Amino acid sequence: MNHLFTVTGMTCGHCEKAVTAAIVRLDPKATVVIERSANKVQVQSEQSHASLAQVIVEEGYAVVN
Amino acid sequence: MNHLFTVTGMTCGHCEKAVTAAIVRLDPKATVVIERSANKVQVQSEQSHASLAQVIVEEGYAVVN
Repeated sequence: MNHLFTVTGMTCGHCEKAVTAAIVRLDPKATVVIERSANKVQVQSEQSHASLAQVIVEEGYAVVN
Repeated sequence: MNHLFTVTGMTCGHCEKAVTAAIVRLDPKATVVIERSANKVQVQSEQSHASLAQVIVEEGYAVVN
């Protein structure tokens, strides 16, 4: 299932890696595509939208929608 | 010996850690204090100023002076 998040606070490549790692810890089978300049995080995962949003927030970023 | 660098491009805490780690790889005895909002990196190390600047640059940041 495809999940699209608007995530603020990702300022550099390290942040992209941190978000990706947090998602993959939750779901090792997830694929993550980040377009940082647009604050977009696209996730292919069978995990729930809420669970995915939660790990992004726990990593220190804001999920806007 | 105390070294003060002005370093641009550090946008978040991950960047601070990356700069610190690069310096400590060069000199495990170094102490590093970063004031990111002022672009300041203060290093206590017996390594040369040029060597320290080099590892910061190699990590992907600009050393302004």
